[in-house]
Amino acid sequence: MITGKNYIGNKLSASGTVSHRTFNPKLNTENDCDFYEATLEEVDEAVSLADQAFKEYRNISGVKRAKFLNAIADEILALDDELIKMYCTESGLPEGRAIGERGRTIFQLRSFAELVFDDAWRENIIDTENINREPAPKPDIRKTNIPLGPVVVFAASNFPLAYSTAGGDTASALASGCPVIVKSHSMHAGTGELVASAIIKAAQKTGMPNGVFSNIAGSGRVVGSALVKHPKVKAVGFTGSITGGRALFNLAASREEPIPVFAEMGSINPVIITPAAIAKRANEIAGIYAGSITMGTGQFCTSPGLILTIDSPETRNFIKDLGQKTTAIDPQCMLHPNIKKDFIKNRASVSEQSGVEVVAAIQEKVEPNYAPTQISAVSGADFLTNPKMHQEVFGPFSLVVKSKDEAELVEIINNLEGQLTGTILAEKSDYSKLDNIINALQNRVGRIIFNGVPTGVEVCSAMLHGGPYPASTDSRFTAVGIHAIKRWVRPFSYQSWPNDLLPDQLKNENPLGILRVIDGKHTDKKI
Amino acid sequence: MITGKNYIGNKLSASGTVSHRTFNPKLNTENDCDFYEATLEEVDEAVSLADQAFKEYRNISGVKRAKFLNAIADEILALDDELIKMYCTESGLPEGRAIGERGRTIFQLRSFAELVFDDAWRENIIDTENINREPAPKPDIRKTNIPLGPVVVFAASNFPLAYSTAGGDTASALASGCPVIVKSHSMHAGTGELVASAIIKAAQKTGMPNGVFSNIAGSGRVVGSALVKHPKVKAVGFTGSITGGRALFNLAASREEPIPVFAEMGSINPVIITPAAIAKRANEIAGIYAGSITMGTGQFCTSPGLILTIDSPETRNFIKDLGQKTTAIDPQCMLHPNIKKDFIKNRASVSEQSGVEVVAAIQEKVEPNYAPTQISAVSGADFLTNPKMHQEVFGPFSLVVKSKDEAELVEIINNLEGQLTGTILAEKSDYSKLDNIINALQNRVGRIIFNGVPTGVEVCSAMLHGGPYPASTDSRFTAVGIHAIKRWVRPFSYQSWPNDLLPDQLKNENPLGILRVIDGKHTDKKI
Repeated sequence: MITGKNYIGNKLSASGTVSHRTFNPKLNTENDCDFYEATLEEVDEAVSLADQAFKEYRNISGVKRAKFLNAIADEILALDDELIKMYCTESGLPEGRAIGERGRTIFQLRSFAELVFDDAWRENIIDTENINREPAPKPDIRKTNIPLGPVVVFAASNFPLAYSTAGGDTASALASGCPVIVKSHSMHAGTGELVASAIIKAAQKTGMPNGVFSNIAGSGRVVGSALVKHPKVKAVGFTGSITGGRALFNLAASREEPIPVFAEMGSINPVIITPAAIAKRANEIAGIYAGSITMGTGQFCTSPGLILTIDSPETRNFIKDLGQKTTAIDPQCMLHPNIKKDFIKNRASVSEQSGVEVVAAIQEKVEPNYAPTQISAVSGADFLTNPKMHQEVFGPFSLVVKSKDEAELVEIINNLEGQLTGTILAEKSDYSKLDNIINALQNRVGRIIFNGVPTGVEVCSAMLHGGPYPASTDSRFTAVGIHAIKRWVRPFSYQSWPNDLLPDQLKNENPLGILRVIDGKHTDKKI
Repeated sequence: MITGKNYIGNKLSASGTVSHRTFNPKLNTENDCDFYEATLEEVDEAVSLADQAFKEYRNISGVKRAKFLNAIADEILALDDELIKMYCTESGLPEGRAIGERGRTIFQLRSFAELVFDDAWRENIIDTENINREPAPKPDIRKTNIPLGPVVVFAASNFPLAYSTAGGDTASALASGCPVIVKSHSMHAGTGELVASAIIKAAQKTGMPNGVFSNIAGSGRVVGSALVKHPKVKAVGFTGSITGGRALFNLAASREEPIPVFAEMGSINPVIITPAAIAKRANEIAGIYAGSITMGTGQFCTSPGLILTIDSPETRNFIKDLGQKTTAIDPQCMLHPNIKKDFIKNRASVSEQSGVEVVAAIQEKVEPNYAPTQISAVSGADFLTNPKMHQEVFGPFSLVVKSKDEAELVEIINNLEGQLTGTILAEKSDYSKLDNIINALQNRVGRIIFNGVPTGVEVCSAMLHGGPYPASTDSRFTAVGIHAIKRWVRPFSYQSWPNDLLPDQLKNENPLGILRVIDGKHTDKKI
């Protein structure tokens, strides 16, 4: 049952008087539970509990943290239909998506459990001593990764499960040994509370210290700011808008002790289609991209918002066909009236720029929070000189740019802001001519895709989900995949440390039997 | 021959009118070359050249970048006596130190050459596809590290070679594929110009693009600020004061596109000595620490500025002995009159705090820029409540704290700011009782040392030189050792990318024959 309260560690708490409700966008009605925003005292209590819990949690074995993560997965599954229903009620997303996203959330939790159980993930490096070295003996030095401290995670609007309460940020931070305080998303606070209850149950069942997890409600900026400014908070994870992420980044940078903020923010995910690809399979590409643009009502960070082509009669036919195919797909519900409002506003802001023409748009009246899909087009010259067209339109919209030639297309790529992804659709005959485009694209994005779509972010070790600013606030880290854990840890060196006092992963006898780097070589041998 | 000009890429340039001179602290006289500070146009020219050079340099093979780094080392050695003399003239440091530091600089350059020649350092990860996976096929994804772009390096006052023009920051950035613009240190601009000439020669001999390296003079904040704010600069490395490092960090964070700043700043490097260690080897410890405190005239980042003990008659004897042994060492020259002035001012600021007593101090008059060594002491209670005593005094000074018990000592550690190092001097009989101290210390520092001294930072793979703020601005990276390269690179993913178009380190046939992680396993096999 939903209480509308905050979890301050294991305790349900609602000392405040400010409350908000979630919204059912499909029914266009408010849901009926009041969620009580945390007071500043509750924020302080949650962070202080996390700080206390950190003293114990940071030293808990990998095996036990893995059990905790797996228990969270189990408890989320145990919420069963109640969770799926709440998710759909609060997001307007279909049941299939809810179940799929729950699966992704579970997979992420179990992946991190598998990663951390044996402490090999800590990048353990041992440089043995050399007492005969001249002019001075070389000391024994051993390095491992240790957690930073309490992490604040801001839940994302567009992934109520996989990038929210027990999503990738929370899973990776808990896996690393950092306690987590989630700032619940006000659009799906009920889903958040259910998942939080699962985490708390799992923490209690597996004997984790009180404060290892808290879930805090807040709809404005007060609660989030208080969390980021709290001296005991040591890092922040965020998925959302550029405005929101940058505000948190600025707050964190202006603290007496600045802390890292990993914010995964906006992206228009440029897609380059070569003339050869259009010549060979315009129809197929239009079909696939109609699906990608409208997938999840265009509410993915990796939604293809910009398609770069070289102008020709074939290209114009392709664009027309893409418009028809995209708008032939039934309009779907958006996450919230505010998201719909922003979609209409941002789409208008791009569409009203000089030179932008509507290729195809759903004209008939749609249900209140449903999104009328639209494809627009513009010339390369107009796009290049007008940065207002480069802004993200979150929703089912894509702008097709008709460049006059490859040089202009490359210049457009060079002038884009940082992006999560870049995609190239090309033929084998193009391979020898793609250098300029690939080089330009690589310098602007975090991941490049060949003959595919940017939507669908695989959870795997080789994934990079992030990229140059403003795709993220630090391109050196990823938000997706097991390496997301690196955001929350720091390397730590032991010099001439007694073997008995070393953590197991660095001991001579290698009691964990893990792969380590000893004097430059990967090995699972003892010393 | 020293020209006093900037290297804007390969070109010597001095368009400006503002100039400064370096100073010979031993002779207490100004040196006679005028160094012309770069104009804003010269700054822009250097950065634009670096940005141009990046397009080529980022794709140059590891073998060629390794040749470039080794050539820099060769050219620095070829400067021979001219460099050593200039170093001594501008720093007041002895010839032995100059030769030692040159050796370290060469070792660092060659270490990075060895690291990057085969591209294994890029942490190459391959997750192969699975077309039969349900509900959707798993795509092939491959990840490697790529360089960020032009890096600005601020030379350090206290390491004219190893952390300046061709020091650890420059070597690691060039190794990664980033062009470097060095903001030369005004205290050793001649040494800087000589080393810069070696880098330029090496770049030309090995065919590197013009702009891969520039050396810019500036004595105030104008030039440094212009560099950090330049939109084409993508990262910053700095070694120096908290005030300086924080100012650059703030500038970088307030850019339209924020960029990472790795600043390695102040530290007082707490040393904990247990009663058992004092009982057993007070005399030996006093001797070793007298050497560590006065080493390099106390002008090391890792100089032991704070010694934490538990009060007792034996401890008081030890402190007295430490004072005598430390002040018995002849006073030595500091780097510059300004460094000496700050030393005297900062030492006074700690010494005048209530409860601080002078244990021993060199009283006789010293040469103008020589530092009169001093050891002071204070009670744990006084230290705990007065953060003014926690500030770094850069120079031969150490404050010994007499705690009333272990609990107070642990509380002191918990209340310290972030530190580069922490050291424990203890006996085997202490091992079972060290948990609280080690846990507290680990949470405040980047490296812990057992029964040694913090001075002497080994250049090796397992070294962490950095730590929680203000030891550094980002505790997740190191300034020393080959992993210093991670500051300048970002992971980058290729999805479903044609084998022919992949970089060699990710190709199926593993043409470089390197160790990679394929589907979770370390292997040098082909696919």
